[in-house]
Parts: sequence; structure tokens; C-alpha cells
Amino acid sequence: MLTNNKDRNKLKIINDPVYGFIAISDELIFDLIEHRYFQRLRRISQTALTSNVYPGAHHTRFHHAIGAMHLTKNAIEVLKFKGHDITDDEELGALIAILLHDMGHGPYSHALEHSIIPSVSHEEISVKFMEKLNIEFDGRLSLAIEIFRNSYKKKFLHQLISSQLDMDRLDYLNRDSFYSGVVEGAINSKRLITMLNVANDNLAIEDKGIYSVEKFLVARRLMYWQVYLHKTVIVSEALLTRSVLRAKKLRNQRFDLFASSALKYFLERDWSLEGFNDKDLEMFSKLDDYDVFGAIKEWTNHEDKILSDLSTRLVDRKLFKIQLGDKIIDSKIVDDLKNKVAMLFNISYEEAENYVIQGKVQNNAYRKDHDSIFLLKKNGDVQDIAFSPDQQSVSAISEAMKKYYLIYPRELE
Amino acid sequence: MLTNNKDRNKLKIINDPVYGFIAISDELIFDLIEHRYFQRLRRISQTALTSNVYPGAHHTRFHHAIGAMHLTKNAIEVLKFKGHDITDDEELGALIAILLHDMGHGPYSHALEHSIIPSVSHEEISVKFMEKLNIEFDGRLSLAIEIFRNSYKKKFLHQLISSQLDMDRLDYLNRDSFYSGVVEGAINSKRLITMLNVANDNLAIEDKGIYSVEKFLVARRLMYWQVYLHKTVIVSEALLTRSVLRAKKLRNQRFDLFASSALKYFLERDWSLEGFNDKDLEMFSKLDDYDVFGAIKEWTNHEDKILSDLSTRLVDRKLFKIQLGDKIIDSKIVDDLKNKVAMLFNISYEEAENYVIQGKVQNNAYRKDHDSIFLLKKNGDVQDIAFSPDQQSVSAISEAMKKYYLIYPRELE
Amino acid sequence: MLTNNKDRNKLKIINDPVYGFIAISDELIFDLIEHRYFQRLRRISQTALTSNVYPGAHHTRFHHAIGAMHLTKNAIEVLKFKGHDITDDEELGALIAILLHDMGHGPYSHALEHSIIPSVSHEEISVKFMEKLNIEFDGRLSLAIEIFRNSYKKKFLHQLISSQLDMDRLDYLNRDSFYSGVVEGAINSKRLITMLNVANDNLAIEDKGIYSVEKFLVARRLMYWQVYLHKTVIVSEALLTRSVLRAKKLRNQRFDLFASSALKYFLERDWSLEGFNDKDLEMFSKLDDYDVFGAIKEWTNHEDKILSDLSTRLVDRKLFKIQLGDKIIDSKIVDDLKNKVAMLFNISYEEAENYVIQGKVQNNAYRKDHDSIFLLKKNGDVQDIAFSPDQQSVSAISEAMKKYYLIYPRELE
Amino acid sequence: MLTNNKDRNKLKIINDPVYGFIAISDELIFDLIEHRYFQRLRRISQTALTSNVYPGAHHTRFHHAIGAMHLTKNAIEVLKFKGHDITDDEELGALIAILLHDMGHGPYSHALEHSIIPSVSHEEISVKFMEKLNIEFDGRLSLAIEIFRNSYKKKFLHQLISSQLDMDRLDYLNRDSFYSGVVEGAINSKRLITMLNVANDNLAIEDKGIYSVEKFLVARRLMYWQVYLHKTVIVSEALLTRSVLRAKKLRNQRFDLFASSALKYFLERDWSLEGFNDKDLEMFSKLDDYDVFGAIKEWTNHEDKILSDLSTRLVDRKLFKIQLGDKIIDSKIVDDLKNKVAMLFNISYEEAENYVIQGKVQNNAYRKDHDSIFLLKKNGDVQDIAFSPDQQSVSAISEAMKKYYLIYPRELE
Repeated sequence: MLTNNKDRNKLKIINDPVYGFIAISDELIFDLIEHRYFQRLRRISQTALTSNVYPGAHHTRFHHAIGAMHLTKNAIEVLKFKGHDITDDEELGALIAILLHDMGHGPYSHALEHSIIPSVSHEEISVKFMEKLNIEFDGRLSLAIEIFRNSYKKKFLHQLISSQLDMDRLDYLNRDSFYSGVVEGAINSKRLITMLNVANDNLAIEDKGIYSVEKFLVARRLMYWQVYLHKTVIVSEALLTRSVLRAKKLRNQRFDLFASSALKYFLERDWSLEGFNDKDLEMFSKLDDYDVFGAIKEWTNHEDKILSDLSTRLVDRKLFKIQLGDKIIDSKIVDDLKNKVAMLFNISYEEAENYVIQGKVQNNAYRKDHDSIFLLKKNGDVQDIAFSPDQQSVSAISEAMKKYYLIYPRELE
Repeated sequence: MLTNNKDRNKLKIINDPVYGFIAISDELIFDLIEHRYFQRLRRISQTALTSNVYPGAHHTRFHHAIGAMHLTKNAIEVLKFKGHDITDDEELGALIAILLHDMGHGPYSHALEHSIIPSVSHEEISVKFMEKLNIEFDGRLSLAIEIFRNSYKKKFLHQLISSQLDMDRLDYLNRDSFYSGVVEGAINSKRLITMLNVANDNLAIEDKGIYSVEKFLVARRLMYWQVYLHKTVIVSEALLTRSVLRAKKLRNQRFDLFASSALKYFLERDWSLEGFNDKDLEMFSKLDDYDVFGAIKEWTNHEDKILSDLSTRLVDRKLFKIQLGDKIIDSKIVDDLKNKVAMLFNISYEEAENYVIQGKVQNNAYRKDHDSIFLLKKNGDVQDIAFSPDQQSVSAISEAMKKYYLIYPRELE
Repeated sequence: MLTNNKDRNKLKIINDPVYGFIAISDELIFDLIEHRYFQRLRRISQTALTSNVYPGAHHTRFHHAIGAMHLTKNAIEVLKFKGHDITDDEELGALIAILLHDMGHGPYSHALEHSIIPSVSHEEISVKFMEKLNIEFDGRLSLAIEIFRNSYKKKFLHQLISSQLDMDRLDYLNRDSFYSGVVEGAINSKRLITMLNVANDNLAIEDKGIYSVEKFLVARRLMYWQVYLHKTVIVSEALLTRSVLRAKKLRNQRFDLFASSALKYFLERDWSLEGFNDKDLEMFSKLDDYDVFGAIKEWTNHEDKILSDLSTRLVDRKLFKIQLGDKIIDSKIVDDLKNKVAMLFNISYEEAENYVIQGKVQNNAYRKDHDSIFLLKKNGDVQDIAFSPDQQSVSAISEAMKKYYLIYPRELE
Repeated sequence: MLTNNKDRNKLKIINDPVYGFIAISDELIFDLIEHRYFQRLRRISQTALTSNVYPGAHHTRFHHAIGAMHLTKNAIEVLKFKGHDITDDEELGALIAILLHDMGHGPYSHALEHSIIPSVSHEEISVKFMEKLNIEFDGRLSLAIEIFRNSYKKKFLHQLISSQLDMDRLDYLNRDSFYSGVVEGAINSKRLITMLNVANDNLAIEDKGIYSVEKFLVARRLMYWQVYLHKTVIVSEALLTRSVLRAKKLRNQRFDLFASSALKYFLERDWSLEGFNDKDLEMFSKLDDYDVFGAIKEWTNHEDKILSDLSTRLVDRKLFKIQLGDKIIDSKIVDDLKNKVAMLFNISYEEAENYVIQGKVQNNAYRKDHDSIFLLKKNGDVQDIAFSPDQQSVSAISEAMKKYYLIYPRELE
């Protein structure tokens, strides 16, 4: 519902091709969006290097965060309509919590999460940002922080923001599907939200929504294989990670390196020794995709031939080959490839690990061991969706799928 | 591909909100569409009384048939591109076969299929129409008929028209989803078609398309529960069927009955005794939704109180109640209800069967025992999709789901 | 905004492919939708025989009325947000007024409006229905009727329902565009509604919305030429009208005629002599597209060769030819054609008017002389859109365009 | 039409949310897309800083170029169908010409066009790239270059690529509309293309398409005011330009400046003295949005307070105010503002020009004096659309609209 914005008496509206328009009716939310911490998210791509496969996928964390807030608002409206008590303060708290939930993401979101700052999760940094903003805004974010941390009494508010059927997922599946053009990833968020309810302080979905939930889980799994874990994406992100790690290593060895001051700051930190202090947060607030890719572009000329080679391949999109399969990669094969690379490129066996990369990806559309998606039956009973008699396929989907990959230069073929 | 239409040198174009435009580039196809047999499909709704639940679902067999032809054309283009030999005549044959595949549908499509002409399937009538047209068009439909009947040597052409992943299903899922607004039913027909191939004369899907197939099957199952077998649809169609059967009975008893001459013709026939002759076909070609619903509207005033009551409920949408569940309905419950109805409405126990109706619906998203959907692996191997290691959930989906319903008047509650 | 529906505590939702979902949150509105008067609109096509050109255009008055109500609700929300006082009763009144505004439409909406009941407009019949319902619902529609008749003090509420930028037009342009697939007719109703305001008790649009209004007017003009006044539509509706008028004439001459009792009732009335009484209203409430087209189908066998010929052409879509141009048709040409037809078909010169039909169509995207569309400037000034300095093209559009048509049988060529 | 790709026998497909899929069926085109010159376009945003207003508008020149090629392919298919002779080589030439038409765009496309390289147009650089590629690809681009330069005998091929109704505009209007969510900008490219024809070696549109052309022109004008020339976009791009020019000036004065080697190269050149040589082209091929915005981010810390201030405002989106109106800005007002700024910020009057910026924007939806859009009448006559009797509004639109802006810091208010 739109509420009058007394001081500025103006309906702020943000265009969103996914939902049409998003109305910003609260002044505090408007000010948070205008804050430079949040504006930075305009420069963090939502899906990192998936644009290497899907050229339309250049949307940002900024747009996603606002979209997820929009869905949360709709969800709260539905829950209130169904008679659940949610105060104006709680509503505002939940909206702020979801708006800021991804603020702690660094450049290229998940892709570099453990390379630039290995030991700190993006959620922890999000909390640090929220706490900083809470001081700036005289404590008006306290309830939002409680909800985000799941320490607020009404658990279902947290579940709107973070659970297996949260507004975060509802937004990103649709948004990533929309911008990538992978239409199979689209889900019916309107219908799912319409069927939300609360039972025993847990978010639940009315049981006639079971097929929509199944569709949502299948869509999510599909998006993982087809987009987030697409072969070309895995290779691109491996190249990105290797480039950054190589640069970090060179910097430790006192090599000169083109980098923005923010990027330099993080390449030089040894994160195992230190916490994440105020200075770190300030520098982090300057760091985005432009620092990283801007540097990588320049590194294509670096004197270190490994760094320049990795960077050039990434920039010119001359990517490595990848094999992706159900079986664990035999270490002998990896060994052989490394030896070949070392010989071919005249580098050491250790350095060859920049060229021969193995790993595992996992696709867990639904996790039984986690916070469940509950079905609310007409008679008031509540049931984990994976144990509903109708849902053989949810049960099947909830088995995690693992795949193993091996990456190596095309020259080896 | 568009080919020049020499005589009329004009690109015929049909607007289709689902695909944008559909180009009709062949003159014979254009003439078939203009034929009164085909024009009749403008008056046969694609999804019968689902518009009682989804008010946008008024699309017709006419539009569906043209849409399915459009997809078939795209599919043939892909297969030719991949090096499979398909002659111009074969292409035309396949296009005509799918264009005419539903011509044998009567009023309200499946809903009345076994009430008006109990013993003849719509496919049989489609063939009769094709044979009639084949005479009119000097044998130019012979190949189309062979393909439709699966007697043509290249089986994969028939599979485009009729199989578990045929262009018929691809069109109707998207079309029904589009017009009903049940967006979860949308499938990515473009992507699926792009991944079509032929292996051992069987249509197959390249194995990277497995998640799209899974999504297609889940969408299909969802459409069954949410649209085709929606409770309100089951009730509406039961009322429709009972009204028609009651009218038939009255007609046999020489009651006067408002009906078009075509409808009268079929109400009076005893189909167990006769075949389906030329006169029948001609009368059938006059019969559509307008005959049936136009009559039902008038029957609301009929002297037979059962007929007038059933018709009025249907016209004014004062529908019966329905219970739908996993368990077979106990015959004692049915019996009790019939007795109550007999008493309440002052009718006989036998007549009460118009008011207390039980039945079964079945949802089979994928049938293992049938013509399979084959996956074509990169190494050339072919595998039934239900046995792919990735596809626990396809396997789960391929279990048929049955539900049992019990319908009775609201007055009994 | 959704308000809790106390008695039935349930969110009624109607699927709408155009807007996603439409929530029905008020019980009275729900009961009005369920009423048989309103259910009848399920059987009145919104765009009559345009489906002869655009096969997807089978949507109904039922869906349009609910869609227009949905937009009105959004508009009221925006106006309240901007500080305009609208009470709950006024909101409900406006919603009911727009919901029922088209109830007086007969079969095939505008196409037959002056053939079946020549002297009574559909708006007058809508009022009669509303008054009847007002009695049934104990006076709860009184305010709605005042708003509909523009006798309520707040004029802008009426303008939401009926003016040159009303919610009726906003809905039908988008809806007709959606179902026909003529995408150029789509307008941005969300944006237009967001920019609504009220000035001096008149609905106005904020001046930054001027290009959206221009786009709306151009879209409207395009839809007239491309859809509502498409050549094939003019011909189809001329055939429909001539068939019905011929039937009426035959009935007056005591010919036997297949027709439902409702249709018969109206064919036999002489409207110049009588008012529109309660019996008329009751019979009218039974009359819809099925009565008319059901009859026309049967009339293809009528002994009167003119009636059977006209009907057959319409049913089998063997339409007349049409010429449409900027010049008035010369009466000599018409005369000649009639004489030819009379000879060719062996009928009288008078009867030939069923075959040679001339007329005029007019496309008025914006009428300066009518209730204006007002622009509200930032400084509070209000200006008619046609006189805004920016808007040369609105001014150009506001010139009415007339075209003249001549219809005759293909056989004459 | 898809043609078999013999060597690699694979259908290359690119996902495009705007058109669904785009098939790349020719190997040379595929290789050109893979070339690092073309890959660079992945890092040039299509609409520069419009994402400051429309957060979804992050699409790139890469995607646009491929989309425009796709439409050109469709257009050629239609023209061939209508009997116009276009050889396979000509088709390929036209496709390559449009694919590469925007290759000469620098960072932020038009926004910086005259700041970084003042004297060379992007079309000239596009030609240089094509000539370079022509050498690499053994002369296979010669015909494409002829078409691009309009020196090929069939002029209509050039008009597909560059004219007032070219495939470039058709793609960018739809694409920019799609990603920005300004749905009023969408045009019916399918319909327009279907109505293309050739008359006297000029591209023409069949005259029944006149309302679609009108709609296209109105959409174009709307996109200019609402997107490309949106106030916030003008301000953002002014800040971007001023920042870059300030940096250039500082560099000339031997200040140290963070910049990639490519950006440094161009900041240091004096373009009035030199041509655009091979070295320039090579360095240009390294330059994209990342160089520029990466530098601007770092310049926020620069010792020059003007550079750091301008950069910070842009990065944190603390933009200047803007007035936009129909009247030329009085030079006295500008003068006053500059003096105020000089005093307030303690800078010289000359430096104040970085803060007080005036200018003019122009919106020319259709230019009569240019290559016309021709209507092809049924009788074969050809007419400039602006002189068609139907088209008062095209005539009105073809008047250029000018607006004048004045930009200054919020602090002055």
C-alpha cells in the first residue's frame, strides 16, 4: 500500500521491466537507496560472468535488492490480509532487511567471494554495513538488523528474507531468467505470494500451491545447470579467480601492479590475521566490478607472463576447455595435464595449477535438512513439502546433484 | 522458410499473440485454412469450460491448429539444418497433417467427446475429413494422411505430430498457459525445438536439453491439475455432459426439444448400430459449441425439471460442489447422497444420478510404456529419458496420479 | 489495497493474462460478479467479429469489466496517495459503477447495437440493470448509480469511468491489443495511472506524462483502423447486421424462423412504439452471442434464399468485397451495382440492398469539443492537452478522420 | 533461413530476451563475433548512463549489434519472398555491415564521443576496423564495406543498415525499451519488417503500414524525451564529460593521473594535429567503459579538487540540478551562477564552467530533408510519408523540437 510521503509529497517510482513499476513510498527507504553504500550495488553485477554466455545478463545487485523488497511488500500485504498481525514498524524492518541483505557482496558477487576476502562471508559484511547505517540513521535500522539476524521474535519475518522460499530467491530467479532470456527459469511469484500464509510462526504455503512450489524448485535447479553453473561460466569464473589470486601473489612478492587503491588494499591484506574493521569497511565500500575488471584489462600487459596470459584469455574470451561429468576426476589425469602444461608453456609444475583446474559444483534445489518449505492444509495441518504424498518429484529433487569439472587450455587437445 | 507464392504473390500472415506472426507461405495450406471444414474450428473452444475458472481461456482449435503447424515448420527447419533429409513434399505433408489433426473434434472438444458420439474417436473423424478433402484437392493430401496414420516410412515425421514431445503439446501448453494466465504452464518451445534431432528414425532431444524436457513435463502435469482438471472445470463439464445426456434421453422418449438441426441429428442417432457415413460427416461439419450451448440456454425453460435445472445451473454458473481426493469414493456415501437428493428434489433414485456423480481423473505427465522421449548423447547413444541417471524426477513424474471425485448439489450440505 | 473480507475470510483472485492477477477484496463486488446478470457477460464477446481477422480476439465483456475495475482501483489508490479525499464508500461506488458499466451491451456488443433494439442505448440498459440490482441489494448501489450518471458531486469519479482518458479505454486498448496480438495498441496504463491527479474536481494528468498521453492517442487511432474498423471486420459486421435485419423482416411477415425464445422476443418487438420495461430487461438478460450466432447457423438452411445466402457467407467466412477510401461513394456506382446484383441473383432492386452496402466510418482519437484531457503543470496551471505547445501531433490527431466504404459480392468483379 | 554450417555442423545460438533466440548460421559471422574487436563491445554500454534513471538499462553494443543483424536477416527474407533479387553474397555483406556498424563506438557510446577523440566520428572508426578485419579475413568483408559506405549499386541494402527506418533503429528502440522498462518505446518490428518492400531501388513500406510507421515515429520521439534526453541522463553525461575533460587538461599540465594505458594514450593525444593511424586503432580496441569509470572512481581521491569533486558526485550519484525548457538560457543568468559558484567553491570564473553548464538538445523523430521513408501504394506509386494525406501527425512530428538546459550545483539553490 502506498502511504503518503508527507515531507516530499511525491511518489518515487523505479522502472523495472520485471514487475513494471516499483513504488518507493517510505522516506527512510528512499534515503537508504540514495546512500553511497547502496548506490555501489549499481556496479556489482548480479550474475558475475554469466554474461559471457547470456549477453543480456548485465543486471545488478542494485536492481535485485529493490525487486526483492517489492516482493516482500506484496507478501506482507497478503499476510496482513489473511489476518496476521504485522505492525508498520515490523513491515518497515522487513523491507529494510531485504533491501540491504546483499550489501556485503563484493565485486562479481559470489564469483570472487572467497578470493578477495577469503575469511569473511558477504552476510557478515552486510551486517557491518547495516550497523554503520544504523548509527547514521539514529537507530532506525535496529529492528531490520534483528530480523536479518533472525533474533526477532516473529521468525516468519526473517523467513521472508532468508529461507528456501524467500523473496530473495523469488526475485533472483525471475530476474536472472528475464535478463538472460532463459525463460524456463521464470516462476509465478505472484501466485506463490498469494498462497503464502503463517502457521506456528513459520512461513507456509497453502497446499493447493504445491505444484507451483514444485515448478519453482524445478526452475531453480534448471537455472543452476543452465545459467549459474553453465560450463562457460565455470571456466570464466575460474579464470577470473586465478587472475586475482595470481595478482595477489605477485603483489606479496612486491611486484608492481596496476590496481585502484581499493583493490590494492584488499590484494595486500592478509585476512587470516585480521578482523574486518571500520577502515576495511570503508575501503570495501569503494570496491566494485570496475576495480577488478579494469585491473584485469591492464594486467594483460603485465610482465608476469602467467598473469598477462590468464587476463588476456578472459578479456578476449579465449577461454579454457572444460569437462563436466558425474565422476570424480582421476588425480593421475590432472597430474599428466599439469606436466604437459608445464612443458608446453615452459613454467613450473606448481605454476601449472593456474592452467589445470579441477573442482566440484553442487546443485541443491531443495534441502531437506534445512529450514523446510511447509504446506498448510485446509484442516490446519502443516507438513514439510518433501514428505507430501503428492510430491514424488520434490523428494527426487531434494537429492543434491554433484558434478566434477576439469579445466585446461585448448592447446592441450 | 518463406517460399514465393507464385500465383497470389502475397505473404499471408496471421496474428498470433503467442508467437507474434505466423506466415502462411503455401497456397494449398492457405486453401485448407479457408475451407469451411477448417473454419468451423473457429467455433470449437480449445479448452471447453475452463473459461469458467480462467476467463481469458476462450481460444479456439482454429488458432491451436495453426500454431502447432507453425512449430512443426520450425522443427523441420532445425532438422534440415542438422543434415536430415526432408523433401519439400514431406514437409508439406507434415504441415498439413498437423494442421488438420484436430479437425475431428466436436463441440467443447474432449468434454463432450463420448456423450454426443460415444463410439467414434476424434482422430477417426479427423481422418474422415482428411480423406474427404483429399478427394476435393485431387489427392494432394495423400502423404499427409500417411504421416498422420503413421504408415509413412519416416516415422519421425509422425512423431512431430503425435508423440510425447510433439508439436501439438508444445503449442497447446503454451497457448493454454497464455490465454488462461497460468504462467507456470509456459514452456520454452523455441529451446526444445532447437535441440530436436533424429536418431534411428526416432525424434530425439539432444542431451543438454534434459532440464528443458523435465521442465516441460512438470509444466504439463501442473497444467493438468491447475487447468484441465481444475475442480470447477470437472464440475462444469459434468453438468454439461449430464445436460446433453438428459436431452438425448428425452429425445428418445419423443419429447420436444429445442436444438439446431445438426444437434438434433446427433441426439437422435444410436451410434452403437451404425458406422460414420458421409451424411454423418456432413452433419458433423455443422456442429460446434454454438449448437450445444445455444440449446442448453433454451433448455433452461424446458418442461422436464431435471433438464431445466441442470441447464440453469450451468448457464448461471451455480455449480455443484465437488470433493477431490486420493481415495476411491465409498459406494455407500454415494448411495446415501442419491437417496437424499431423490427425497429433496422429489425425483427417483435413478434420476438422482444426474445430481450425484462420481468419477476418476488421471494425470500422466510421462508414460514409460508408450513411445518414449529419447535423449541423444554426444557420443550418439540414445536413451529413454526416464532412465537417464540425472532424471530422478522424470522417473518420479512418470508415475500416473489418480484422483477420485464426488459431485453433488450444494443444497445437500 | 486488500481489505479483509470478514465473513468469508478469503482472497478471491481472478487470473488475468493482462495484469497477472486481479484480487476481489469486497464481498458486494464478489456477489455482483456472481450474479447471473453479470455472468451473462461471459457470453458477449468484447470485439464482436474482429476474431474473423485476429483469431485470438475471443475475449469477453466479462473480463474487460473486471479489468477496468482493477485499473480504477489502482487509480484511486494513486489519487488518495496524492492527498485527494476519497471515502471508502466513494471508492466502492466507483468500482461498482465501472464493473457494471457495460452490462447493457447486447450480443456482439456495438456491432448489433442498433439492429436488435434500435432505439435504446447500451448505457440506458446498463442503468436499468443497476437499478434492478440496487433493489435486490437493498440500495447499496445508489452511490454507484449516481457516479455512473454523473450526478455525484465529485465529478472526477465519473471521469475515471467515462471520459477521454478513462479506465474503460485504458483497459480495452490493452486487452484488445493483447488478445488480437496487435502489439502497437498496447499502452502503458501503469505509467498513465501513476501520473493521474485531480485539479478543480477534474481528472488531470501531470504534464511530464504528455508523451504517454500522445502515445495513448496514437495507439487508440491505430487500433481503430487496424482492428475495430479493419476492412474484414466492417464486412463481417455488415453481414451480421443484414442477416439479423432480414430475419426480423421475415418474422414480421410471419415466416417461421429458428431462434431462441429470447431472440424471438426481440425480433418481434417494434421498438419505436414501446419503452424498455421489466419484461424486456428480463428477456434481454437471457440474450447473448449464442442466441444470435446459433440462429444464424441454422438460417443457412432457411427457405428464404437471401437469409440463407447471407448466413452461409458469414458462417463459412466467404465474405463480400469492400472498398474503403477517403471519398464519398458516388450514388450512381451504388445504383449500378444494385442493378447488377438484382440481375445476377434474380432478386428485386430493393432486396439488392442486402448485397450492396455503403457507409461511413469515423476515427476520432481525441475530440476537442468534448470533455478534455487536462494537463496539470508543476505550477498548478491546467491546460487542455490539444493546446499544449509541445503537442503539435495531438492537435493533428484531434482532427476526425472519415472513410467511406462500399461493400458488394465478389461475384460482381 | 538457416544454412548448414558444414565444417562445424553446429547451430550457434545466442539467447536474446528481446527476440527469443538468434541463430548464427554462417561461419564467417561467427568468427567475426568471436574476434576481440567485437568482443570489446560487451564492455560498451548501449545507453551510457541512462542506467542512472532506469536501473535495468545495462545492455551493451554487443547485444544490439547482434539483434540488428537478426532483424536485417528477417528483412532480407521478406524482400526475397516478395521477389526482389538478393544474392547470398549480398545477404552476407549486409549482415556483416550491420553487425559491425557500431564497432567504432568508444566508451559510453555517444556520451563521450566528442570528448575523448574530438575529431573522429564513430562511423569512421567503424570503417577502419572493418578494413583491418578485411585484411585478416582475406578480403571477405569487401562487399560489406561497400554496402556500409553506400557505394554498392543496390542502395536499398545500405538503407536497411542506415536510414530513417533502418534495422539499427528497429533494434535499439525495442531493446532500449525492453531493458529500461519504458514500454511505450516498444515498436512492432515484426509487422514493420513484414511490410517492407523495394521501389526504385529504395526501401519502402507498403501503405497499409502507415499507422505502424506513425507509431514507430511517436515511439522514437518518446524514447528521446523519456530516456536518451531524460534530465538525469543529461546531467550524468555532463558530469562524465566534464570529468574526462578536466582529467585531460590536468594530464596536459603533467599532473599524475590514475588511468589504464589505453585511456592515458587518448587523454594525451592532441587530435587536431594527427590522423587516426594503426597504433591509434589498436589502442582504441583496448578502450571501453571499464577504463573510463575505473579511472573516475579513482579520481575521487585526486589532489585536484575539481576533478575529485566532479568524480565523487558522479560515482555517488549526487548529481547537479538541471532546468530544461523551451527558451534559450539568458547569458546573464549563466554568468551570475558562475560567479556564485566561483565564490562558493573558491575557484576561478573559468573553472566555474565545470559547474554551470548550458546546452541544447534536439529531438527529431523524422527529418523531411533527409533520406525519406517511402510509402508504396497498391498502384505502385511511391510517396514520402510526411506528405501522405493521412498523416497530419507525421507531418507534425517532423518538426524538430529543441530544448535548452542549464545545469548547476544543488548548493546554489
